Amino acid sequence: MIDNGEIYTFNTIAIIGAGLMGASIAHAARKNNIARYIHVCETDMQHYKDAENLNIFDTVSTDISCVRDAEIVFLCIPPAKIIETGKRIIPLLKKHAILTDVGSTKAGFYEALSPFLTQDVWYVPGHPIAGTEESGPKAGFAELFDNKYVILTPHPDTSLKALDKVVLFWKMCHAKIEIMTDEEHDFALAVTSHLPHLIAYNLTYTALNVEKLRETEIVKFSASGFRDFTRIASSNPTMWSDIFLLNKKNVLEVLDFFEYGLAVLRQSIEEDNESKLHTIFSTVKDVRQKIIDAKQDTAKVNFGRE
Amino acid sequence: MIDNGEIYTFNTIAIIGAGLMGASIAHAARKNNIARYIHVCETDMQHYKDAENLNIFDTVSTDISCVRDAEIVFLCIPPAKIIETGKRIIPLLKKHAILTDVGSTKAGFYEALSPFLTQDVWYVPGHPIAGTEESGPKAGFAELFDNKYVILTPHPDTSLKALDKVVLFWKMCHAKIEIMTDEEHDFALAVTSHLPHLIAYNLTYTALNVEKLRETEIVKFSASGFRDFTRIASSNPTMWSDIFLLNKKNVLEVLDFFEYGLAVLRQSIEEDNESKLHTIFSTVKDVRQKIIDAKQDTAKVNFGRE
Repeated sequence: MIDNGEIYTFNTIAIIGAGLMGASIAHAARKNNIARYIHVCETDMQHYKDAENLNIFDTVSTDISCVRDAEIVFLCIPPAKIIETGKRIIPLLKKHAILTDVGSTKAGFYEALSPFLTQDVWYVPGHPIAGTEESGPKAGFAELFDNKYVILTPHPDTSLKALDKVVLFWKMCHAKIEIMTDEEHDFALAVTSHLPHLIAYNLTYTALNVEKLRETEIVKFSASGFRDFTRIASSNPTMWSDIFLLNKKNVLEVLDFFEYGLAVLRQSIEEDNESKLHTIFSTVKDVRQKIIDAKQDTAKVNFGRE
Repeated sequence: MIDNGEIYTFNTIAIIGAGLMGASIAHAARKNNIARYIHVCETDMQHYKDAENLNIFDTVSTDISCVRDAEIVFLCIPPAKIIETGKRIIPLLKKHAILTDVGSTKAGFYEALSPFLTQDVWYVPGHPIAGTEESGPKAGFAELFDNKYVILTPHPDTSLKALDKVVLFWKMCHAKIEIMTDEEHDFALAVTSHLPHLIAYNLTYTALNVEKLRETEIVKFSASGFRDFTRIASSNPTMWSDIFLLNKKNVLEVLDFFEYGLAVLRQSIEEDNESKLHTIFSTVKDVRQKIIDAKQDTAKVNFGRE
């Protein structure tokens, strides 16, 4: 595994799907000299061409058998396609190869794929908590995972060696690792990611409905608050439809919590209960500090950003 | 009005309240040589000291009579205090002086203050659609209003000369001017600013309630989506309690729209209606482009910002 003086931790990795995630993984693997050969499988023709022009992949192919030599295969496709694609890939893998993924939901994947695993091929489900609202190969960048959490949800029967390899890969991308069960993952993400996206979609949908009914143009006054929601609401529609349906149980449960809170706020407004509003707003202000303390964001104001 | 070779459009302006808005107005007036003398009235002692250290005010005072020489007085205080403070200031104003404000709601202010106006003193209500989640004098900066809308809601009886002076001031701060009625303003802002803030508060409140009930730490996985809401939800609690109560009628009306949309999304998830979800998400994605076209934001990804 020594080539031109470079020492690579992995000789060959394969990425299925050259979108934002797949391209960012390749960028990060190149930049940090993690893998010598990087193959990608991409069936969308525009993405295929864009991937070819990036100069980060050794081969770009529409053929899933590009996974044959890989030590790790990353499924970077919409979550609803992970099981089906995983089933096709596992039989092609070499001994000691590891299948992993970046899907935003996790429950059910391992159970569905485990009957197809052999004694020497492992599946380690994963999810980098990182992203932008952009899609496609050109949106990828090497620093996407810097100081971000990657949650891994390994099955108790999975070899620690396999888990360690996936951990090592992500650590070399400068990510932080968190291990939990897939059920824990899906609940936590329902709160911090899935519900916020659903709400962002709904806020923008609300503005559209109001504009239509009132025949007035109001979206242009979007400087305070609203535009941040529209940014979130411009994320990939296919991926997000998948996520809400795959994680339906948890999304509906946290939606119950959300509707409870909204009813409290509505009632406080209806009853002119200023002190109740002030108490709630002051309490939630502290959450911001927790996020800054956890280095998930900076205190820096960026509303006026260029 | 010529001093050290500089030509100033206004000799003296006064600002009531040295918070984010008041300090930013002073910064912008200094940077763009709009006013020769800038006085500020501030009664919070920490803000008073901070304002003194900024070197943008000629005088910092706790005495509201600092408005005596001003051609324009800016009320940069929480919206619930505008009427009460306006009543105290109007009798102190010199001939042809203009009172204006930056309150996030507008309806009712003019009606409440107009009985106190004399023939030569005008009140031109205003609202710069610009801000950050920061508060206090140190948060102010001169570029806050660059290319942002300032909505003015003048009364039909107000002198055009007075209106023109306020328009000129804001144009010199590089803002764009929009004239409408106070009722139109309050409805538009309920959609694009007040509802989004209420929802951001509620999303963060929801996460806190879930954490408490489940005794688990989930806020740390906030990279996707959630952290943008917590930034909005860390805005000034007093100001936002005021806004929701002052604009109660419109806030509750757009909240009805929001709850309708949420019910549609909930039902689509419950019924596994993927195509309905996909259609809504694709439609709202277009709103983002409208905002970028209106130069209210850039297409640039900034989730990974430092």
